[in-house]
Amino acid sequence: MKERIEKLINSLEKNNIDAIFLAKAPNVYYFSGASPLAGGYLIVMDSGATLYVPELEYEMAKEESSVNVEKFKKIDELYEKLKGVDSLGIEGSLSYSFVSELKEKAGIKDFKKIDDTIKELRIVKTHEELEIIEKACEIADKAVMAAIEEITEGKREREVAAKVEYLMKMNGAEKPAFDTIIASGYRSALPHGVASDKRIEKGDLVVIDLGALYNHYNSDITRTIVVGSPNEKQREIYEIVLEAQKKAVEAAKPGMTAKELDSIARDVIKEYGYGDYFIHSLGHGVGLEIHEWPRISQYDETVLKEGMVITIEPGIYIPKFGGVRIEDTVVITKSGAKRLTKTERELI
Amino acid sequence: MKERIEKLINSLEKNNIDAIFLAKAPNVYYFSGASPLAGGYLIVMDSGATLYVPELEYEMAKEESSVNVEKFKKIDELYEKLKGVDSLGIEGSLSYSFVSELKEKAGIKDFKKIDDTIKELRIVKTHEELEIIEKACEIADKAVMAAIEEITEGKREREVAAKVEYLMKMNGAEKPAFDTIIASGYRSALPHGVASDKRIEKGDLVVIDLGALYNHYNSDITRTIVVGSPNEKQREIYEIVLEAQKKAVEAAKPGMTAKELDSIARDVIKEYGYGDYFIHSLGHGVGLEIHEWPRISQYDETVLKEGMVITIEPGIYIPKFGGVRIEDTVVITKSGAKRLTKTERELI
Repeated sequence: MKERIEKLINSLEKNNIDAIFLAKAPNVYYFSGASPLAGGYLIVMDSGATLYVPELEYEMAKEESSVNVEKFKKIDELYEKLKGVDSLGIEGSLSYSFVSELKEKAGIKDFKKIDDTIKELRIVKTHEELEIIEKACEIADKAVMAAIEEITEGKREREVAAKVEYLMKMNGAEKPAFDTIIASGYRSALPHGVASDKRIEKGDLVVIDLGALYNHYNSDITRTIVVGSPNEKQREIYEIVLEAQKKAVEAAKPGMTAKELDSIARDVIKEYGYGDYFIHSLGHGVGLEIHEWPRISQYDETVLKEGMVITIEPGIYIPKFGGVRIEDTVVITKSGAKRLTKTERELI
Repeated sequence: MKERIEKLINSLEKNNIDAIFLAKAPNVYYFSGASPLAGGYLIVMDSGATLYVPELEYEMAKEESSVNVEKFKKIDELYEKLKGVDSLGIEGSLSYSFVSELKEKAGIKDFKKIDDTIKELRIVKTHEELEIIEKACEIADKAVMAAIEEITEGKREREVAAKVEYLMKMNGAEKPAFDTIIASGYRSALPHGVASDKRIEKGDLVVIDLGALYNHYNSDITRTIVVGSPNEKQREIYEIVLEAQKKAVEAAKPGMTAKELDSIARDVIKEYGYGDYFIHSLGHGVGLEIHEWPRISQYDETVLKEGMVITIEPGIYIPKFGGVRIEDTVVITKSGAKRLTKTERELI
């Protein structure tokens, strides 16, 4: 953590700012080691870093934080600390209200987004971070296998989700990385078909998309199955998505851009005539946030580097009929992508 | 929903703005009925309202939304829609990045926070909303009873949390309203002691704080128990917190301010000499968000009205020793506060 804070301090001069103000939970955690539920604010200056937390978080934050911790009763006390700061580095996610108050009450004259500085640090995972993510992926693998076993005709999607979320927690997860998707039948055509009260029927395609939050880090995996035997069309789109996913996993390597990787899977699906049904990007970075940099999309030219963790998750969604998505979390290594989620992909 | 949108449209003139731009999920849901997981943006103009969603959310949003839905591939397409708008109403939570882009790319000249307009609508719950919240409270009541049964010497806090979260989901909850708190022994002195791997020991105070998200609405309840027989000090602080909680529930009524209500419980705890150990506000509004208006604190002078839903949750936290908190979700009615969470409070 100390090294991370030092890098932030060093960035002050480069960014031509007097101080940095961080409010976003994953950033506060990344740089301090603390994760106050009611929020915390990290102020970084040449002289060092201090984490400010509401009184009720003070005892816990002191235990967790590697930097100095102070408590406040009213947020106005924070503005006092920033008196004399003209130019402040902030996260782009900081709210309009907060920025307005920092202007008025702390007298900040100039704001500079430092997201790129943070991205540069967080986007490449250390060995320690990778070990945690691997464990998060292991929990997700077990959960997917459990979901496949749980899915039977007549059961409600929500019951399957309840069971696998329970198992993830018993296996050490803090919570699901996101709302578990168990999308069956026509709902499988909805990429974000969070588990509902719909009963699973024979012949349904079922998209299972889940992840575990473990020790602050996320994992993400999707598998698709059919209840009973697949029909011809179901098998057809499954094979296409599988081919696209495998090709992208095999092709991913340091030096290529996120856009190029997206194109590899997209081109496979286009060739088979289903391009219009692949309605999202190929993937996203995974770490302290379930969706972070890089975006594996046509709009992101980030060059892939060793140590980046991303998802590769092509899909085909045919409204009313159903959908298929196959997704792994992978880490970019010298020799290519290594799958961190390892559940079998040949399921139909 | 139609009435709600009409109220927003009517607010345009009063607020002297050309359009309103909403990005926060609970607001998007409140005014459109849709809850796109990857986000959605509601633009309200004199001519009506349109919900813009990424392509992957389109089919689902169309099903859910009571207003017109359009899809976009790049966020820039939204800025096109706002061309010609000079003055835009936004949420205070809107990000600095978004505001900057709206300035540069959509040519917005003037931003006005419309949080008060939204607060005024959302803070008083309709009969339909209250019915949903009551159901969310019922699920939470059952979960607390289950937690009390589950808590035994030697069990890990996380195992208890896993079990009650599973039950909430099986009882119809979408998910926990927040990270379930099972804080035992010295951890009970941490107001936000989310369930950890700590094993529960004989003689531990255990704070159980949980809630259910049901049909988009939240509930919130806390109970504290002792594993085995309480010692004198544990019983003493329990009795004080219980007295403070009961007095505040009995006193709450339309016409008093949030601050006055906070003082009623705070004064009880102060009289017994534990004022310094009640380190948070008395409560908060509950609805589409787990923490919303009003804040029941020394800093909020909101006048309580019939139909507001709030928590009443005094606590005493003694570092290293342990803590006690007792909390109910209540609705303000003509004749006073009605408890929506109903689990027995005499547990020690």
